[in-house]
Amino acid sequence: MSKLTEYKDMSPRARAVVAGIAAARGIDPADINNVWKALARHPAVMEQFAAEMKEAFAPGKLDPLTKELVYLAVSIANQCDYCIASHGTMARRKGMTDEMHEEFTRVVLAAIKGNKIAMAYRVPVDKAFEEA
Amino acid sequence: MSKLTEYKDMSPRARAVVAGIAAARGIDPADINNVWKALARHPAVMEQFAAEMKEAFAPGKLDPLTKELVYLAVSIANQCDYCIASHGTMARRKGMTDEMHEEFTRVVLAAIKGNKIAMAYRVPVDKAFEEA
Amino acid sequence: MSKLTEYKDMSPRARAVVAGIAAARGIDPADINNVWKALARHPAVMEQFAAEMKEAFAPGKLDPLTKELVYLAVSIANQCDYCIASHGTMARRKGMTDEMHEEFTRVVLAAIKGNKIAMAYRVPVDKAFEEA
Amino acid sequence: MSKLTEYKDMSPRARAVVAGIAAARGIDPADINNVWKALARHPAVMEQFAAEMKEAFAPGKLDPLTKELVYLAVSIANQCDYCIASHGTMARRKGMTDEMHEEFTRVVLAAIKGNKIAMAYRVPVDKAFEEA
Amino acid sequence: MSKLTEYKDMSPRARAVVAGIAAARGIDPADINNVWKALARHPAVMEQFAAEMKEAFAPGKLDPLTKELVYLAVSIANQCDYCIASHGTMARRKGMTDEMHEEFTRVVLAAIKGNKIAMAYRVPVDKAFEEA
Amino acid sequence: MSKLTEYKDMSPRARAVVAGIAAARGIDPADINNVWKALARHPAVMEQFAAEMKEAFAPGKLDPLTKELVYLAVSIANQCDYCIASHGTMARRKGMTDEMHEEFTRVVLAAIKGNKIAMAYRVPVDKAFEEA
Repeated sequence: MSKLTEYKDMSPRARAVVAGIAAARGIDPADINNVWKALARHPAVMEQFAAEMKEAFAPGKLDPLTKELVYLAVSIANQCDYCIASHGTMARRKGMTDEMHEEFTRVVLAAIKGNKIAMAYRVPVDKAFEEA
Repeated sequence: MSKLTEYKDMSPRARAVVAGIAAARGIDPADINNVWKALARHPAVMEQFAAEMKEAFAPGKLDPLTKELVYLAVSIANQCDYCIASHGTMARRKGMTDEMHEEFTRVVLAAIKGNKIAMAYRVPVDKAFEEA
Repeated sequence: MSKLTEYKDMSPRARAVVAGIAAARGIDPADINNVWKALARHPAVMEQFAAEMKEAFAPGKLDPLTKELVYLAVSIANQCDYCIASHGTMARRKGMTDEMHEEFTRVVLAAIKGNKIAMAYRVPVDKAFEEA
Repeated sequence: MSKLTEYKDMSPRARAVVAGIAAARGIDPADINNVWKALARHPAVMEQFAAEMKEAFAPGKLDPLTKELVYLAVSIANQCDYCIASHGTMARRKGMTDEMHEEFTRVVLAAIKGNKIAMAYRVPVDKAFEEA
Repeated sequence: MSKLTEYKDMSPRARAVVAGIAAARGIDPADINNVWKALARHPAVMEQFAAEMKEAFAPGKLDPLTKELVYLAVSIANQCDYCIASHGTMARRKGMTDEMHEEFTRVVLAAIKGNKIAMAYRVPVDKAFEEA
Repeated sequence: MSKLTEYKDMSPRARAVVAGIAAARGIDPADINNVWKALARHPAVMEQFAAEMKEAFAPGKLDPLTKELVYLAVSIANQCDYCIASHGTMARRKGMTDEMHEEFTRVVLAAIKGNKIAMAYRVPVDKAFEEA
């Protein structure tokens, strides 16, 4: 398990990152989730990841729930337990019903099967797909 | 590279699967894509995968493009070149613009970074996320 | 693509490894497969891998085809195209029929689905399985 | 950790799946293992996985222990702790001795090394293996 | 294969990124490598990756060759052929001899074996390692 | 969790391996870490892994800390929690400061992003990198 640094014990640089995230989410900085408490000792990594997350989830052409589902799909494929737990929660907060969750899971499992079939059968890419 | 079986040379069982897919897509069975030509020699695997794909993409609570993006996200995380090429094409056909593609890619890359950070720093799951 | 060294151009140390493998297989050392031609410039890695392969496939309690299927299953899970091509060929030479190949593939795909389900649903290990 | 639903609290659809598995194994449905308790809230995923497992392990050309070893090999390659624990137990129940377990592990480890060597040295597939 | 955009055909935003990289490396922007030609249509992803690479390889406490070896090790573990080819070349340009390459490969292969052994045997973390 | 065998309960063959490692590290064999206690029931796997680790970390052209960082990089990419915990500790013992740890992490994260970008954009290898 990681060494977690509580908000009150963080360096000014780490505090600034957490304060920014907490303000955007409307929560108390002391209630920030563990990934930020773990990153606090490496402020450069922390700042970069916070910036990347903020830009990835900035309002755009894809709606917030779609983005959460994409994030969750990657986390399942990569088998990150922390990320499945945290972004599964986020997805529900952004409107994922249990029915949507099941539909989503079926697509994820079909994709994983398709990925392995393409490798196992050594399938060459169709010409029609090469104009990507 | 895989041995590909053309539609005209497939067994009746494999032909039936391809005919069903081609009808649903409104294409000539002879133009079916390579993954099905590769699977033709293993009809039980083929039937099961065709059924699973059909159910995963059946109309439901998530729209068709969201499902394609979830499929594509898994394929990138799993590094399946065939699937990235084919489902990237599918996603564009279902309305993914270049702007949406870039937004999608940013979420995928942020997720991959988040996944590795959670592992590298050995972050314990927050209690708030355990009620999943 | 890798720099491949032909048998006649290999160092004495690399030649010795290849000669041993060729003798065991009853083939001409010049016909050794590419992985050994690629490894020839790193003889310590080559010797260690040759020894490990020899021991893994030495006669024992598991029959030769079972071992090939285990090797092939790992190679599909790891998405190694070279290994799928080479050990797929080996498995057929050791008796894998097309019917067995399809059965094998179904188990591999079921396993991959089971793996992802266990992660996606964050399933805790049953007490009965902890006495492993 | 996942929300687990006990058999007595499952929906009729989930109960039917569990009852079928329990009957086939000759166990009490209340003793079903955790993966099914976790899947109970998503009956469509559950039914599909149960069907896929049943077909994969149906009597055929490969014996039951070989199939368990293939499943276990995939689970190790994919690093699924739950699956290693459960299918390791299954393999022992189906006859895997400690000696066979060690032999199996040696093949798995040799395969993983072979996979990475083929990638690290960027080895091109031999012509002889392309006729797969 | 990706659509590659040559420097002369890039948008001003993409050109600026490439010009910066080319200047730092002392090469003609027209000779930039393919990853940047592929990224040119997604300038936000491009800018972020260029910044992240620049910071990761900025002078610091670890020497440039060590950083290249770390990058190459990750690329082998992740099985990225493009990255193995490009960063293998970079490592040689930064001083990696064939002897060092072999030593490096042995550590990578030992690590991969250690990783899988720890998973396969379900090894619990020692108390002495938990104070990380 | 694995069945761990304490040094005093190991077979003579397993004891010999542990005694060798303990002597080289200047520790009491009873304090050997868990991976060896887990491997004790499979002495052939144990002997081979001990030999491979010894050779990989034998004095050579790369310094001990660089080797630890390569090992740790692979372990993060492969998401092996045990290995991240143990080799993170080893790296600190061999001189990795927190500043070096952060630099190292930035390279690892940049590599992972580079790996996925190369796959997602299906980037072809540059001719200049093919002479590897």
